[in-house]
Amino acid sequence: MSRRAPGDRPPEPKPPEFRPGTWLLGTGPENDIAVCTRARLARNLQGFRFSTCQAEAEAKELYGFVAERLKAPGLPETLALVDLDTLDELERTVLVERHLISRELAGSKRARGVAVDTEESVAVMVNEEDHLRVQVFAPGLQPAAVWQRAERLDDALLQRLPMAWSEEFGFLTSCPTNTGTGLRLSVMLHLPGLVWSEEIDKATNTAQKIHLAVRGLYGEGSRALGDFYQVSNQVTLGRDEQEIQSDVFLAVGRLVQWEREVRQALLSGSARPRTLDRIHRALGVLERAQILSSEEALGCLSALRLGIQERLLDGFTIANVNRALLLSQPGHLQRFTKERLPAEARDQRRAQLLREVLGCGR
Amino acid sequence: MSRRAPGDRPPEPKPPEFRPGTWLLGTGPENDIAVCTRARLARNLQGFRFSTCQAEAEAKELYGFVAERLKAPGLPETLALVDLDTLDELERTVLVERHLISRELAGSKRARGVAVDTEESVAVMVNEEDHLRVQVFAPGLQPAAVWQRAERLDDALLQRLPMAWSEEFGFLTSCPTNTGTGLRLSVMLHLPGLVWSEEIDKATNTAQKIHLAVRGLYGEGSRALGDFYQVSNQVTLGRDEQEIQSDVFLAVGRLVQWEREVRQALLSGSARPRTLDRIHRALGVLERAQILSSEEALGCLSALRLGIQERLLDGFTIANVNRALLLSQPGHLQRFTKERLPAEARDQRRAQLLREVLGCGR
Repeated sequence: MSRRAPGDRPPEPKPPEFRPGTWLLGTGPENDIAVCTRARLARNLQGFRFSTCQAEAEAKELYGFVAERLKAPGLPETLALVDLDTLDELERTVLVERHLISRELAGSKRARGVAVDTEESVAVMVNEEDHLRVQVFAPGLQPAAVWQRAERLDDALLQRLPMAWSEEFGFLTSCPTNTGTGLRLSVMLHLPGLVWSEEIDKATNTAQKIHLAVRGLYGEGSRALGDFYQVSNQVTLGRDEQEIQSDVFLAVGRLVQWEREVRQALLSGSARPRTLDRIHRALGVLERAQILSSEEALGCLSALRLGIQERLLDGFTIANVNRALLLSQPGHLQRFTKERLPAEARDQRRAQLLREVLGCGR
Repeated sequence: MSRRAPGDRPPEPKPPEFRPGTWLLGTGPENDIAVCTRARLARNLQGFRFSTCQAEAEAKELYGFVAERLKAPGLPETLALVDLDTLDELERTVLVERHLISRELAGSKRARGVAVDTEESVAVMVNEEDHLRVQVFAPGLQPAAVWQRAERLDDALLQRLPMAWSEEFGFLTSCPTNTGTGLRLSVMLHLPGLVWSEEIDKATNTAQKIHLAVRGLYGEGSRALGDFYQVSNQVTLGRDEQEIQSDVFLAVGRLVQWEREVRQALLSGSARPRTLDRIHRALGVLERAQILSSEEALGCLSALRLGIQERLLDGFTIANVNRALLLSQPGHLQRFTKERLPAEARDQRRAQLLREVLGCGR
């Protein structure tokens, strides 16, 4: 699958094959609503220009410099560095869909890479918008845990890499919105209750008022396909890491509570039949459709996930639904089925694959 | 269920309980597309004004006069006469949904009734738009058979009832469009192929050019819910019964052939996946929906019927789909479930009942 020419650089470690990454586990605190938590630290090296204004040679030099130091023994995490130039587009798309790299890093022409652990709970992007973006993932709502693990890795990196830091501003970053702690704590929330009851805008506005950023995980603009939202702190400067952690934990906790209350309302009284109808119809589509777009799949899987969490459906697990969510995306679909498919054939293959993954095949 | 007051007229025979009527059998020639054929004869008695201009007393007199002669032995059919005043609204609706009486007869305030055989293949409406409307049903495309059976009954009725007839015009009828033979031959066709491929308007126009009337069986105006159409001769005057029969047989035969060709196209090449998708999704809705309107049920059952006819689905029979078509209608639904339900509860009960009838319950 690699596009390396013969005699080119020696092969880098391959990205991990398909198995559950951290966010897929369906475990952790508040996992009925909080899918996973991510800590992200933005770091830049002294003596190099920011990634966004590098010449090609400078980018290569930076990448080589960082790569050497990431590979040196002694880090608290065991990471395998993958040079993204050694991957083809499909393999890079797979990494994007697994949340290990950003779409920007995948598409960039610069020398760049990502260092990942075998569990996919740690991923360090090299030469994204910032020279280094340290990411740590954990299932459920765990801002403290991801922050602590990220901090430990950051401490080790600070030992071996000269980071750009100012007494006045803290860590310097390519975009000023990350300056200071460089810390973004984000939680992936599944909010079908708030979406179905049309309270999501109210919830989003409330979150924004307390300086949280809310965006749809899938889809563009304001459309959140599959009812998945990413909620994160907007402020990196002027609040320390403990405060950010606590802010996110409390605010997300409130959203989780709100979602639970709305779900109860949707499953009570006269609203209940319509909610059940919607959940079971989604299952019917997953069981029977012969052509299934990624968009429709996300919507159906969201309904299924709600049905499982609320104990309305037997024979399905959250881990399988999460797996289906991942596999329904174009890169994974083609990677998993080992076929390069045009869009229409992909929609047919998706319908079939999801039945296999969910165990409701006919 | 009857609204008779104590001491009122003695009970008339009850309308038949639920079991397959003739049009439900799914048998007969061309039954993949032609559901059933009906012959209808319009007859009026000498010495009585047309039903539409009767005074109440005159209607009663006519009804009594006809009833006595229908009950007298010696008819070639064994018919039980039901006085529609002895039925409540729900029971009358059931008869309408079974195609035994018209909605107009059900709603009329005049003395009126219907004489039905136990197979529901013969139904004589008394005091509809005409004094008598003889109807004979047979499954599939059988214009000759229904005409012959209707003719035999008509001959016997002519012996015992003085029918209005003119040398110049033939049988006289309340509406001039029925004058002459008074014969309307109609075939109920299931045309999902023509509808799905958007050729239905072309087909309808072609039929109209050769003097056939085409109308949707369910739904109002041009909307034909469930893709069921009723095709009948427009001309009753100037063509004899043999010619009408032959006209309908040939013209409907052509529509049947057209539908078959279109179905083949829908199931070939690049159209096939979309057609399969539509059929299987309909099944998914029938299997899983918790709330199902009569309208949506008709659409899904139409797709299911097509899937069975084209051998794309196992485990279902046309007879069961026809049964489900009947039971999905409000009157039957409430009669069968012995519950009087508001619309929303009806939609829930319908979803459940159809799964039971189709044997795909969960």
